[in-house]
Amino acid sequence: MMDSESSNKDCLGWAARDPSGLLSPYNFTRRALGRDDVSLTITHCGICYADVIWTRNGHGDSKYPLVPGHEIVGIVKQVGSNVQRFKVGDHVGVGTKVNSCRDCEYCNDRLESHCVKGYCFTIPNNYPSASAAPLLCAGITVYSPMMRHKMNQPGKSLGVIGLGGLGHMAVKFGKAFGLNVTVISTSTSKKDEALNLLGADKFVLSSDPDQMKSLAKSLDFIVDSASGDHPFDPYMSLLKVAGVYVLVGFPSEVKFSPASLNMGAKTIAGSVTGGTKETQEMLDFCAAKKIYPEIEIVPIQYANEALERLIKRDVKYRFVIDIENSLK
Amino acid sequence: MMDSESSNKDCLGWAARDPSGLLSPYNFTRRALGRDDVSLTITHCGICYADVIWTRNGHGDSKYPLVPGHEIVGIVKQVGSNVQRFKVGDHVGVGTKVNSCRDCEYCNDRLESHCVKGYCFTIPNNYPSASAAPLLCAGITVYSPMMRHKMNQPGKSLGVIGLGGLGHMAVKFGKAFGLNVTVISTSTSKKDEALNLLGADKFVLSSDPDQMKSLAKSLDFIVDSASGDHPFDPYMSLLKVAGVYVLVGFPSEVKFSPASLNMGAKTIAGSVTGGTKETQEMLDFCAAKKIYPEIEIVPIQYANEALERLIKRDVKYRFVIDIENSLK
Repeated sequence: MMDSESSNKDCLGWAARDPSGLLSPYNFTRRALGRDDVSLTITHCGICYADVIWTRNGHGDSKYPLVPGHEIVGIVKQVGSNVQRFKVGDHVGVGTKVNSCRDCEYCNDRLESHCVKGYCFTIPNNYPSASAAPLLCAGITVYSPMMRHKMNQPGKSLGVIGLGGLGHMAVKFGKAFGLNVTVISTSTSKKDEALNLLGADKFVLSSDPDQMKSLAKSLDFIVDSASGDHPFDPYMSLLKVAGVYVLVGFPSEVKFSPASLNMGAKTIAGSVTGGTKETQEMLDFCAAKKIYPEIEIVPIQYANEALERLIKRDVKYRFVIDIENSLK
Repeated sequence: MMDSESSNKDCLGWAARDPSGLLSPYNFTRRALGRDDVSLTITHCGICYADVIWTRNGHGDSKYPLVPGHEIVGIVKQVGSNVQRFKVGDHVGVGTKVNSCRDCEYCNDRLESHCVKGYCFTIPNNYPSASAAPLLCAGITVYSPMMRHKMNQPGKSLGVIGLGGLGHMAVKFGKAFGLNVTVISTSTSKKDEALNLLGADKFVLSSDPDQMKSLAKSLDFIVDSASGDHPFDPYMSLLKVAGVYVLVGFPSEVKFSPASLNMGAKTIAGSVTGGTKETQEMLDFCAAKKIYPEIEIVPIQYANEALERLIKRDVKYRFVIDIENSLK
């Protein structure tokens, strides 16, 4: 589905060969185009922290050689005989899923991320390919729970914990939804960009008890995108009665006092990517509202350094590989 | 507000004098009836686990002498000049709150349990006083989150963890809402009553891996009323995609893997008692649907033994003190 050349010919990607995760050029062959398949020429691919995990066998189930990448944008090159939604030349994206069973209750509700088995999405006209790439993982991962938990209510307040690929999109969606957005961070170095580049209304340093106290019981919603381990009680105390805390990061554990949840009847909810219907809706929303991820475009030859910088959290806010102009 | 005699005269209750929690007769005086006050002759009072905690200074903030009891039912004896909703002779109940500020956003929404400061509720005609008492704490504590999280959808499935005062009410409400109810318990001794007395559809022993596996991803909702410490991941795995887990118990901590929350986009929500509007609604619902708590009626002289039995979880499912016939 995602070759840069036609089916049955050699494809070129950059693969990790072992748990060092080091990427290098790799030639491989794809299956012949099936009746339901869409073949595309990839132009851009975003880099997600999951690529660090998979290339380095972080979950213990990586199979090498491994070509990472799941924030893919390109142009349709060929379509199978059954394909009606896409035609050659269409501007499309592919996210974290490339198939589903199409038959279970979740697939029938177009909540396919809960099925076990991708899809192409139409990239709206004039939306830049490089900007579209991060929407297909980082974007939908925060948009989906924000919509599910009705965070699109103008005038309400949102706290965003963690300002990486996911968190900075939560700030942008929050502002587009008309929310009052507070960025809560462990580092003052994020303050200027949070306020001036991303448009947050307020910045609070989580290590400052006075600043945290001033925010107590003031937030309707929190999106927690921090993947590092952190306490939950201090952040939950920032929620108003019936406030909703959405976890999109993956710390090693979630642990809090029942009082933090019970007193004030609060809710903590989890999420992971989104279904096809809401992914297309999110792409269209970003185009309509002119929401663009903050990206650093790099050549494929920079991929290993980009992964290393991602590990050091030295990224503002998403690397996108210019496949079209660098993968030869 | 809750005297058995008129204001300005000596009242008789049973009080704990120190952290041993031992109750004994205690004469005290109430303030003169205020313009907004309702004075009642108490006929029944339920015993809640919180009474164990408070009489024994479990939270470290008990003030002695301490007369416990917050599931109170009686007859209005006298009303202040401003009182319009109640008249002498009315059949009323008083729960965990006896005042609120009446002025904040939560009070204005009649979500007064989130305010800081009681109320009388009208006990529906012909509803037995002894049965009404446990509704004012145990009943509303499970009814409120069940309604807030839309568990009143016939045909959906509910798991109830813990079968005490709160849990057995969750089973009864679940059946009244048309849910398929599974009781999940650590003890097979609860099986017969769960199925035959309370009307649950299914009983699962949590210590049996096969029984738990058969329940995997099958529940829309869970009400967890277990106050003892227990793992959360095994129970969260029983929820379907987008399933909702409501915690009404108070274990010492809540701890789980983020994957248990994120994979399947699940929600865990807390709760504590309810507001005045929903408390009256719940009382009326119980009368209309003929929902009665399972109670063991005891005289006030049995109060200490009842508290001891509550500590040993030897109660089916709520003690109610017959104040009218035993407190002399």
